[in-house]
Amino acid sequence: MIPAMSSINDAREVARRRLPHVIYEFIIGGAEDEQALRANLHAFQRLTLRPRVLVDVSVRDLSVSVFGTRIALPVMIAPTGLARLAGREGDIAGARAAGRNKTIFTLSCMSSHTIEEVAHASSGPLWFQVYLWRHREVVESLVVRAKAAGFQALVVTVDVPINGKRERDLRNGFVVPPRPTLHTAVDILRHPRWVLTLRPPITFKNLAPAASPQQTIAHAKYFNEVLSNPAATWREIDWLRDLWQGPIIVKGILTPEAAEEAVAHGVDGIIVSNHGGRQLDAAPASLDALRDVAEAVHGRVELFLDGGVRRGSDVIKAAALGAKACLIGRPWLYGLASGGEDGVVRILEILREEIDRTFILLGRRSFTDLDRSVVGSSRNGEELAHATPHQR
Amino acid sequence: MIPAMSSINDAREVARRRLPHVIYEFIIGGAEDEQALRANLHAFQRLTLRPRVLVDVSVRDLSVSVFGTRIALPVMIAPTGLARLAGREGDIAGARAAGRNKTIFTLSCMSSHTIEEVAHASSGPLWFQVYLWRHREVVESLVVRAKAAGFQALVVTVDVPINGKRERDLRNGFVVPPRPTLHTAVDILRHPRWVLTLRPPITFKNLAPAASPQQTIAHAKYFNEVLSNPAATWREIDWLRDLWQGPIIVKGILTPEAAEEAVAHGVDGIIVSNHGGRQLDAAPASLDALRDVAEAVHGRVELFLDGGVRRGSDVIKAAALGAKACLIGRPWLYGLASGGEDGVVRILEILREEIDRTFILLGRRSFTDLDRSVVGSSRNGEELAHATPHQR
Amino acid sequence: MIPAMSSINDAREVARRRLPHVIYEFIIGGAEDEQALRANLHAFQRLTLRPRVLVDVSVRDLSVSVFGTRIALPVMIAPTGLARLAGREGDIAGARAAGRNKTIFTLSCMSSHTIEEVAHASSGPLWFQVYLWRHREVVESLVVRAKAAGFQALVVTVDVPINGKRERDLRNGFVVPPRPTLHTAVDILRHPRWVLTLRPPITFKNLAPAASPQQTIAHAKYFNEVLSNPAATWREIDWLRDLWQGPIIVKGILTPEAAEEAVAHGVDGIIVSNHGGRQLDAAPASLDALRDVAEAVHGRVELFLDGGVRRGSDVIKAAALGAKACLIGRPWLYGLASGGEDGVVRILEILREEIDRTFILLGRRSFTDLDRSVVGSSRNGEELAHATPHQR
Amino acid sequence: MIPAMSSINDAREVARRRLPHVIYEFIIGGAEDEQALRANLHAFQRLTLRPRVLVDVSVRDLSVSVFGTRIALPVMIAPTGLARLAGREGDIAGARAAGRNKTIFTLSCMSSHTIEEVAHASSGPLWFQVYLWRHREVVESLVVRAKAAGFQALVVTVDVPINGKRERDLRNGFVVPPRPTLHTAVDILRHPRWVLTLRPPITFKNLAPAASPQQTIAHAKYFNEVLSNPAATWREIDWLRDLWQGPIIVKGILTPEAAEEAVAHGVDGIIVSNHGGRQLDAAPASLDALRDVAEAVHGRVELFLDGGVRRGSDVIKAAALGAKACLIGRPWLYGLASGGEDGVVRILEILREEIDRTFILLGRRSFTDLDRSVVGSSRNGEELAHATPHQR
Repeated sequence: MIPAMSSINDAREVARRRLPHVIYEFIIGGAEDEQALRANLHAFQRLTLRPRVLVDVSVRDLSVSVFGTRIALPVMIAPTGLARLAGREGDIAGARAAGRNKTIFTLSCMSSHTIEEVAHASSGPLWFQVYLWRHREVVESLVVRAKAAGFQALVVTVDVPINGKRERDLRNGFVVPPRPTLHTAVDILRHPRWVLTLRPPITFKNLAPAASPQQTIAHAKYFNEVLSNPAATWREIDWLRDLWQGPIIVKGILTPEAAEEAVAHGVDGIIVSNHGGRQLDAAPASLDALRDVAEAVHGRVELFLDGGVRRGSDVIKAAALGAKACLIGRPWLYGLASGGEDGVVRILEILREEIDRTFILLGRRSFTDLDRSVVGSSRNGEELAHATPHQR
Repeated sequence: MIPAMSSINDAREVARRRLPHVIYEFIIGGAEDEQALRANLHAFQRLTLRPRVLVDVSVRDLSVSVFGTRIALPVMIAPTGLARLAGREGDIAGARAAGRNKTIFTLSCMSSHTIEEVAHASSGPLWFQVYLWRHREVVESLVVRAKAAGFQALVVTVDVPINGKRERDLRNGFVVPPRPTLHTAVDILRHPRWVLTLRPPITFKNLAPAASPQQTIAHAKYFNEVLSNPAATWREIDWLRDLWQGPIIVKGILTPEAAEEAVAHGVDGIIVSNHGGRQLDAAPASLDALRDVAEAVHGRVELFLDGGVRRGSDVIKAAALGAKACLIGRPWLYGLASGGEDGVVRILEILREEIDRTFILLGRRSFTDLDRSVVGSSRNGEELAHATPHQR
Repeated sequence: MIPAMSSINDAREVARRRLPHVIYEFIIGGAEDEQALRANLHAFQRLTLRPRVLVDVSVRDLSVSVFGTRIALPVMIAPTGLARLAGREGDIAGARAAGRNKTIFTLSCMSSHTIEEVAHASSGPLWFQVYLWRHREVVESLVVRAKAAGFQALVVTVDVPINGKRERDLRNGFVVPPRPTLHTAVDILRHPRWVLTLRPPITFKNLAPAASPQQTIAHAKYFNEVLSNPAATWREIDWLRDLWQGPIIVKGILTPEAAEEAVAHGVDGIIVSNHGGRQLDAAPASLDALRDVAEAVHGRVELFLDGGVRRGSDVIKAAALGAKACLIGRPWLYGLASGGEDGVVRILEILREEIDRTFILLGRRSFTDLDRSVVGSSRNGEELAHATPHQR
Repeated sequence: MIPAMSSINDAREVARRRLPHVIYEFIIGGAEDEQALRANLHAFQRLTLRPRVLVDVSVRDLSVSVFGTRIALPVMIAPTGLARLAGREGDIAGARAAGRNKTIFTLSCMSSHTIEEVAHASSGPLWFQVYLWRHREVVESLVVRAKAAGFQALVVTVDVPINGKRERDLRNGFVVPPRPTLHTAVDILRHPRWVLTLRPPITFKNLAPAASPQQTIAHAKYFNEVLSNPAATWREIDWLRDLWQGPIIVKGILTPEAAEEAVAHGVDGIIVSNHGGRQLDAAPASLDALRDVAEAVHGRVELFLDGGVRRGSDVIKAAALGAKACLIGRPWLYGLASGGEDGVVRILEILREEIDRTFILLGRRSFTDLDRSVVGSSRNGEELAHATPHQR
């Protein structure tokens, strides 16, 4: 049974207690001074919404259509590497939970489950995420397998030409190869239930189906040093465009200029994202960037937002500023840590319930009913001053 | 005897000590992250006032005329459900205190006292508040009784098509049916004096004159699930307009568009309110909304403000921005918890004394003497940084 | 010997330790939520100054001319009632210290020393402060005595038609008549040295030369209730204008409109002041008001600032925005509490040293060398976030 | 071996533990209320950067050319007096570390090592810093020696016509002559390793090659009182211009007007600096001033920034706003305290790694690839609210 959780914050709190500190900090952490991470949250909190009253909202429709696929609510699961660190079933749990909530699960190429396992377990629409690694054949083989397994769209992460500087991980010795501090080791032993998630060993299963921890570390090193590709350009997108007939979505765009290039290269969608504040710490907040990008793109491709979504009202704010749907990263891992598949279902239910309630309070019936006029003036900073200090 | 209290903050502090935590948090709580709640308070604190000096203010008149009724000060008591939770005499105490202070008491339809009991006990003008429930006959019977009992005006709350998400109540198990945590149960037992307020049982007496706690819970469920009406539209206002000849005041308007609709449907007054931050957490501050609404309405109906009034100067600020009077919700419950009827009288006296003193310091003699020119530039956030952290 | 003190903050800290809490809070407190008090400090901290470099500043002149009197630095001592509460010698110490520093001391009419005693003790220029009490004969007798005693100018406080609501004093029972809490009584006994200051009893000596504590309390009641005059108008200024040939300075102006009236009624100077945040809590910061007033007055009368001056750079900022000089209230009482006359001298020396050092760093030689161009853009709030939290 | 340090903050933390409190506070402290110090840091944190994606950044060039000298990264070491207080090898360690990182070391004239010693130890380009002391012959002899020793450029500090008011030092008794408090003395004894750095005694070796502590104190007094020169004007720059054929760089400019004068007097470079917040506390942030100065100078001389650089991204922000390179003061002392020469090398490596990573994340290959368009909108203050509170 999953513990009582009424909000994403509650789930984060449960995750904090259940996970070893090193894992919890790996999940919640951002780059350097975590400015971009905090900016993501504050950008939502600053925005007010303008309610209509005495509108018949007895029937609401939270569904949206994403590349022709109807999903029950505009909240999708973002690709996150090594999800199994947060919970034994990892991406299997996530994909099943998304399916049960009739929304899209995005599988990270750095999963500890294979493409085929996830496709087999899932009952809903699936997207697959890739990096533009140096060795095209590695990427190609993954893409081919994803196509065969029935994944509907390809998410290409473009904001990781190199990993961001995550200082919590550096402090905790959560690096490749690991350098656990004594404190970290003791803390792990105090979470015996979590230790069970390490059986079978957590590996990058799509890249090496069976691996020992040692091999996993070797792989991680390999990806970081050999595959990672600061030389990737839009030509890689052209190449993928030929390889993949379904929708291609570029993840990690923050400026109108980059969005224009994406459109010019024939992508179908853009995920406006600063990678949850884990890459460039000086990056603007995702929501602030969405506003600019939406004006430039003007409906030519579908827009999505990733970063800072913690409330149903956040999803509505993003929609009002032009996002078709939002992706959640940390929140689904909190759910996974709190209660496995049921925990992730709970996260999606919380957001669905919050969106629905906010629709009723706003006098809106559906996402087609929203536009910029629902967004009011911005709050000043002081209202945020007492917000949950550890909120992520 | 009531304890020494010099300000609304003092009264809140007394209430905090006297009430079980679950009840105190039910009163002070807001929706979700409590942004709208904090915004209400900060909107007042940001505004400065511009004093005149060497004006003869030896005689002041704090009274205002509301729909032709002269009240001694422009502070009225807002409708609050289940007021008896804060103090044994509940709305009886509130109505008597308002009468002693020659101002208006608004009775919630969710009172634990009957319309007739309150009318009988009160010596001053009364308003009655209703929701636009699904079953018009329930509403109609209340309205007919209120008319018969001599209530002067009808307040129609339009911002509760569904209850807001109050996470303090969820955490405390203060839900329907109740799920008290062990902590809550122990805490209640530590407040034996408060436990006495549960005799006779707290019920929704206007809807079921005699009820056991079990029946009350059943009723609450019934209201939440059966009566609550997300289908209500302005047609319900038209219907009420035919039913009720006195003033109709719509409570819960936050935008000029909604105010225009209210005027078009023949209401007599508007209470600009975000329901004390208890409904839509993304809502703007009441005072900020008042400014916009007042410009649009331009005197066609009487305007009131509800939300965040904690000082006499707040009443003056609202008046300068166009409100005929303010309603106080939490403050009168603090008074009730602190000293019953005398406690509520004390709250109104504190505000009267603060308004009067501020008038003298501002060089103003009456509310007709106020206009926008008394409002100065806004403060920045930093002055607020050290404000009483628990202020509500 | 006075303790080591490098700044006004240091002196406040010494005062905090030496004074009973009730007295310390009486001095540092403001009205209601102390917004105006904090705003005074922050208005200075927000402003930046633009330094010149490689200017010969080997010789500086910190003196200014106030109504034709040369004073060694543009920092004067503000009138403060009951100064003896902060230190045994009270206004005698203040007047002597001002004289030793060749600046002006302003004697409050609520002093515990007589006009004649202070005039006798002082070696420097003196101003005398009055209220516009109901009974003109009381005011007149004081003014006649002040003239006879050689006081040069008359300061008329116009922002106390009633006392502000000082909640610290209400909480501490520091009211008329006193209602000391047990905590206050014990705390006073723990400051035996301070108790000595109560011999001879602290009275309003100009109004009743010899008085017991009981009589003092009776007097305070009398002033509050009988003399205080919310009916005072600019006609009182006209009357004083006939009575007093020297400069008349109106203290407590915060708007251009009020400043215009003052000029129209023939005053010679204006002290822009919100009474140290002790009267109208919604008042603007003194420095913000100075900017507006200076533009309106445009040199027709001499302007002064009172409120929030804690650094030499504050004096320079006020001068750049149009103030001839600043008055210090709380700071001189901190000095008095820290070391009597020598403590006040130290306060003035600290400010002189800070002004001088800031002149050198700014590349300015004198106050005639300053104008608006030395003021730079404003800081945002965040730089202030870590400022000494208890700063007053 | 130096301890693990991933960021400048980490190094500061190591320095805090290793140094006696009095020394640590001497290094981190600013003037008066430390507003300018905090403003330096916040000015960087407020600025966002706009990333390009899918740009080939496999090859980056972090080098820049400063007066024709190629340096490996645009981070140079600022002149800091008495560096030996932070670590035994002092400027020798700094100069060697800069040389190993192929960047410029600036030697303070207040060094505890001679010009010749530093020149002999260093393998990289060197600048020499002077004050415009009263006795030109003292300055001239230093300049002649620096020229003979092969120093390439002369940095003339113009913002110290007098020392700023550093209240931490006053509180700790770190003044001339020293007045150590008991607390300070005990604290020093608890850092026996640091006490070793006092052998040989720390002196101003360029001014008096061999000195006892007593003589050093006498010298400090001499410099403060006799040499310091509030009479210095731009004529001193003209005089130096004749004396020194290499580049002359004026350090401590904060306004366009001062920059114009510098250009008019033939300087080659300007270091925009508020002296790390140690001089005029009301000064604007270095980065804010850079923006204004760069617009005025418009490429006529080379611009540099000093103050608040703690991240590689800060260097990029300064470059985008017009700085050729940045100087680091406190950070190199943190490195020195943490691990001597290797510690300083580590500081430069950290910044180089951060600049490089940020270049990759921004899609930029070199500093010539940067302009104002990389700078995005400013953050509000709230993102900064949770930044490391002790960050310097």
